[in-house]
Amino acid sequence: MRKQFLLLAGISALAAVALGADPALAQETEAAAEAAAGVPAESAYVFNTLLFLMAGFLVMFMAAGFCMLEAGLVRSKNVSMQCLKNISLYSLAGIMYWVVGYNLMYTGVDDNGNLFGTFAPYSWPGAGEANEGDYSVASDWFFQMVFCAATASIVSGALAERIKLWPFLIFTAFLTGIFYPITGSWQWGEGWLFDRGFSDFAGSTIVHSVGGWAALTGAIILGARSGKYGADGSITPLPGSSLPLATLGTFILWLGWFGFNGGSQLAMGSNADVSDVSRIFANTNLAAAAGVMAAVILTQVIYKKIDLTMALNGALAGLVSITAEPLMPSPFLAIVIGAIGGVIVVVTVPLLDKLKIDDVVGAIPVHLFAGIWGTLAVPLSNGAANFGTQSIGILAYGAFTVIASAIVFLILKFTIGLRVSDEEEALGLDMSEVGLEAYPEFGQGSQRL
Amino acid sequence: MRKQFLLLAGISALAAVALGADPALAQETEAAAEAAAGVPAESAYVFNTLLFLMAGFLVMFMAAGFCMLEAGLVRSKNVSMQCLKNISLYSLAGIMYWVVGYNLMYTGVDDNGNLFGTFAPYSWPGAGEANEGDYSVASDWFFQMVFCAATASIVSGALAERIKLWPFLIFTAFLTGIFYPITGSWQWGEGWLFDRGFSDFAGSTIVHSVGGWAALTGAIILGARSGKYGADGSITPLPGSSLPLATLGTFILWLGWFGFNGGSQLAMGSNADVSDVSRIFANTNLAAAAGVMAAVILTQVIYKKIDLTMALNGALAGLVSITAEPLMPSPFLAIVIGAIGGVIVVVTVPLLDKLKIDDVVGAIPVHLFAGIWGTLAVPLSNGAANFGTQSIGILAYGAFTVIASAIVFLILKFTIGLRVSDEEEALGLDMSEVGLEAYPEFGQGSQRL
Amino acid sequence: MRKQFLLLAGISALAAVALGADPALAQETEAAAEAAAGVPAESAYVFNTLLFLMAGFLVMFMAAGFCMLEAGLVRSKNVSMQCLKNISLYSLAGIMYWVVGYNLMYTGVDDNGNLFGTFAPYSWPGAGEANEGDYSVASDWFFQMVFCAATASIVSGALAERIKLWPFLIFTAFLTGIFYPITGSWQWGEGWLFDRGFSDFAGSTIVHSVGGWAALTGAIILGARSGKYGADGSITPLPGSSLPLATLGTFILWLGWFGFNGGSQLAMGSNADVSDVSRIFANTNLAAAAGVMAAVILTQVIYKKIDLTMALNGALAGLVSITAEPLMPSPFLAIVIGAIGGVIVVVTVPLLDKLKIDDVVGAIPVHLFAGIWGTLAVPLSNGAANFGTQSIGILAYGAFTVIASAIVFLILKFTIGLRVSDEEEALGLDMSEVGLEAYPEFGQGSQRL
Repeated sequence: MRKQFLLLAGISALAAVALGADPALAQETEAAAEAAAGVPAESAYVFNTLLFLMAGFLVMFMAAGFCMLEAGLVRSKNVSMQCLKNISLYSLAGIMYWVVGYNLMYTGVDDNGNLFGTFAPYSWPGAGEANEGDYSVASDWFFQMVFCAATASIVSGALAERIKLWPFLIFTAFLTGIFYPITGSWQWGEGWLFDRGFSDFAGSTIVHSVGGWAALTGAIILGARSGKYGADGSITPLPGSSLPLATLGTFILWLGWFGFNGGSQLAMGSNADVSDVSRIFANTNLAAAAGVMAAVILTQVIYKKIDLTMALNGALAGLVSITAEPLMPSPFLAIVIGAIGGVIVVVTVPLLDKLKIDDVVGAIPVHLFAGIWGTLAVPLSNGAANFGTQSIGILAYGAFTVIASAIVFLILKFTIGLRVSDEEEALGLDMSEVGLEAYPEFGQGSQRL
Repeated sequence: MRKQFLLLAGISALAAVALGADPALAQETEAAAEAAAGVPAESAYVFNTLLFLMAGFLVMFMAAGFCMLEAGLVRSKNVSMQCLKNISLYSLAGIMYWVVGYNLMYTGVDDNGNLFGTFAPYSWPGAGEANEGDYSVASDWFFQMVFCAATASIVSGALAERIKLWPFLIFTAFLTGIFYPITGSWQWGEGWLFDRGFSDFAGSTIVHSVGGWAALTGAIILGARSGKYGADGSITPLPGSSLPLATLGTFILWLGWFGFNGGSQLAMGSNADVSDVSRIFANTNLAAAAGVMAAVILTQVIYKKIDLTMALNGALAGLVSITAEPLMPSPFLAIVIGAIGGVIVVVTVPLLDKLKIDDVVGAIPVHLFAGIWGTLAVPLSNGAANFGTQSIGILAYGAFTVIASAIVFLILKFTIGLRVSDEEEALGLDMSEVGLEAYPEFGQGSQRL
Repeated sequence: MRKQFLLLAGISALAAVALGADPALAQETEAAAEAAAGVPAESAYVFNTLLFLMAGFLVMFMAAGFCMLEAGLVRSKNVSMQCLKNISLYSLAGIMYWVVGYNLMYTGVDDNGNLFGTFAPYSWPGAGEANEGDYSVASDWFFQMVFCAATASIVSGALAERIKLWPFLIFTAFLTGIFYPITGSWQWGEGWLFDRGFSDFAGSTIVHSVGGWAALTGAIILGARSGKYGADGSITPLPGSSLPLATLGTFILWLGWFGFNGGSQLAMGSNADVSDVSRIFANTNLAAAAGVMAAVILTQVIYKKIDLTMALNGALAGLVSITAEPLMPSPFLAIVIGAIGGVIVVVTVPLLDKLKIDDVVGAIPVHLFAGIWGTLAVPLSNGAANFGTQSIGILAYGAFTVIASAIVFLILKFTIGLRVSDEEEALGLDMSEVGLEAYPEFGQGSQRL
């Protein structure tokens, strides 16, 4: 069709020349017709918006992935509570990100040196009102909202089996309404880190390490589950109740990550953009696959058994690692970046145990440590990034999140209390706070029938 | 690019004028070029069809969501049967909606006063034949079919643990092949309620309350599960076998609802349409989130425990509530509508128990009561709707569905029988009708090993 | 808008004629403008690439579907291992298909008589490089990769509960890196079977029967699980641990199949293409539904109970059956093809047991037998296909895959060994190889606590 347009333009040009029009003008006309073979502006608007919607529902489904992963990795007496925390945090994040989060993150951060946007509910044009720009702002809100919720999901797993519901939800409100949006604005709101050239394509640092820092802070302030670490330095494994659910959760997260990284291209209304999204899909899958294989091989070598939970966390670590730069690496480099993520998990999970930091699902190795690695790996393929600025970004996100989280956790600890009592912990949170057992006919549940 | 087209048009116009063409014609030409920056007709056709396909597969996946929700909320001795009912009803609905449903719903309802369409299998153009219109009719069939199946899914949960498979499937054939299509034609087939200005964007009434009315009728005719209601007025909870599966089902339904409500825009081939779909996504999520938070807070206040199943049903009630009008409400109104849905569930679940109506999964509060609320809430944001017509619509759908369902249920009851025997109910439907236990190594199953 | 373009073209044509241009040229110009109402070339590129990405993530999710199906159908003592095999095989397939698979399948097969492509990693244009053609090649790689992984998923179910992890993964590397790509190149790489007119739209033979042949070969070489077949000819059912997970897996596979068959249209950037994709969605659903209903009715008639696992495999057999030609059949024919698939499963599952071929999940009836049926059914609706060539294709794929698989399985058997020891098999692979139980608090697991 391109040829046909050229023809049309050629004739118009001929006519124009014959009429004594400016030949330069005629040449420009030809270029215009050439461009007409491209994506018309309104079609591009639809494509871009569709990317946000499609990637958005994929990332939304990650809430189910986190829920299944965590429900499978806690003991059966805490499974209902873990489900409750996950559906509540996703809901609360969705409301808080409308109440204040989006505006705080994306408006008012400008060259006037504002550190964050405005404290106000976000509003998008109503039905029938004009929709300016390159995509629907409501679709962008939806997409950014599910990212925000993912940050909170990271925390719930690490603090499982001992934190009370309401303090957890209050912390979630602060994290999703205020902390994540403020730090997010530094980069994605085009704030000071953006100006300095920090590079984090889809959020290894902005999403994953922020969730990881909050989880680490919470895990330290909460303390370990009773029975996990003996006074003699012994470590007791507290195995999860359902590894198939944990595996399902991992697959759902992997699926959602195509939206997470692919959607972060923020546009697909052109050959260049949709081709970039395609590369991102391919690299994302390669990195995750490499994370799995690295963890499988390494646990075989070290432990002579292949730890399924390490394979699952290897996948997630591979995904987190490639998230900071899923576009520029070659396929081979994507595999290397993901594999190192898998190695990091296998090495650091026991390390946290030695430090008596009790992270129930391995969220800190996966989201924080692999997130840092991924952010530092950006300059390997992206010439516009450098290790110095990447390090500054990592430290800034860490410092803010740790301090802000610690303040909220400590206030909660010394007011309404963070942790269930020892008796409640032994009984399980399902009986003490939810009043419903996850599996009333099996395991612990069946003994009460 | 818009500018480039203007240039092209301007030159053509110049040429035309020079040649003595009608200046009005030339002006029209300029307008035409302006329009060329929009979505070409065939691109819009692709976008619209893609919306049906994408929303369709999301709604199709709701069949899995209903299945997991119900499998998690019945006792382990009935889980295989519940899975069997769900995959069978989805299959049967898909066939019936081709055999007779689609034509009954969408053809032949016109200004001649026909109450429904024709009784005939639907056919779409074969490969290579012309595809007229604004979207592929096969994609529309697919999209409408999964809606029809959702209606039947609502019924299976309420009647679980006691209805026999075959009577249930015979009822499903009537519901999906005849009842749903006939009442659906009143509005979406542009029948008499459409003419009167009834407004139900994605089916709070047309889908959800119809499923809810059928469930209510069936639950009354079937009677409660044995052991549920004591002669002394006592109510015995019969807890579900797997709350993580119920939670997974809820998340899948939530995901599917973006297709359910978003796809009901019926087009996305323009800035206006895709922006509307985006608003619908955002409002749908806000309403669901509000339903969860309302149920969580309310159960905490009333019961001092947070009932996970109420939180799950709160999400679904929020979703059903916003379904009648997901486009027009402001974000704040969407939150209010969803929250009231969540409150309705918490308040009416015990009410049904007092009336000794045994609804195993809470389908009647979620789909019928919240569906009525959502339909009545339309005029709050949509000026074209009014409470009177909304009420007429609700009553008409209720009257038809209750009467038609009662006739089929009663005929089945007095012929082949609706309900398993007391012995079979005590044993569980998995052993009596399916011959396979859901969890042969756990719970009840393990006791038989 | 079409009219407006005609106007524009008409004016240009008038101008051209007035200037003495060739009238034929002017006519061509009019045709060009007419075409302008269609999908511009770059928009079509975006649509086509989007189809690969969307269908790709749906098929990727089938990995989770296979995993859940298999985790639900093995005994609880082997569930962790089954999850580990599934996530590992998907990862390994994803890497192997980059290392060598894609190039072997799609490059170098030309009219010079090459039997397969080149042994080299595949590379796609980097970010910023030109993307020629009708779609992004990276999106095509992603789409083809998930197909390759599906082939390996088929094998893991049949060989469950007795094959060791590492030999299984080594076989997977050969299957996904070399065997599947070589045979795939015969048809989809436009090799010798393509030249002969073999027809297999989405892979009843190329994917499903290849997986099925490999599974059959492996099942025979491995031998049955101990305890399955008695010396006296008795057959002991070894029921799966979680039928709701198996049902979930089936629904996920059904969902993924819309991507599998729909994406195999390979384009959606025009009215014709997207309408074809729509027909494929509708036919795919009808065939699956018919497979379920056929299995449900047949097991009722034969066994007086309705076997849920047969219903699930009926769905999958319906899907496999329609995969060779999902576009051309009328809706009625799609139902017939799917229903026969369901019948095949119900009839052949006991047949395999009589032959003492132990296929844990029914993969051979579903993927091999229904795959052959689907391939033979192509000429029923597609005039370009004939039974002779279809049969040659089926036999060629079978012969190559059986011989190549047997060689690898036998070498593994006589070197590192294929099968766990009898003690390990009795203990379960979760304890012997994974070191983690799937359900430590339930069933077998709880007895060890």
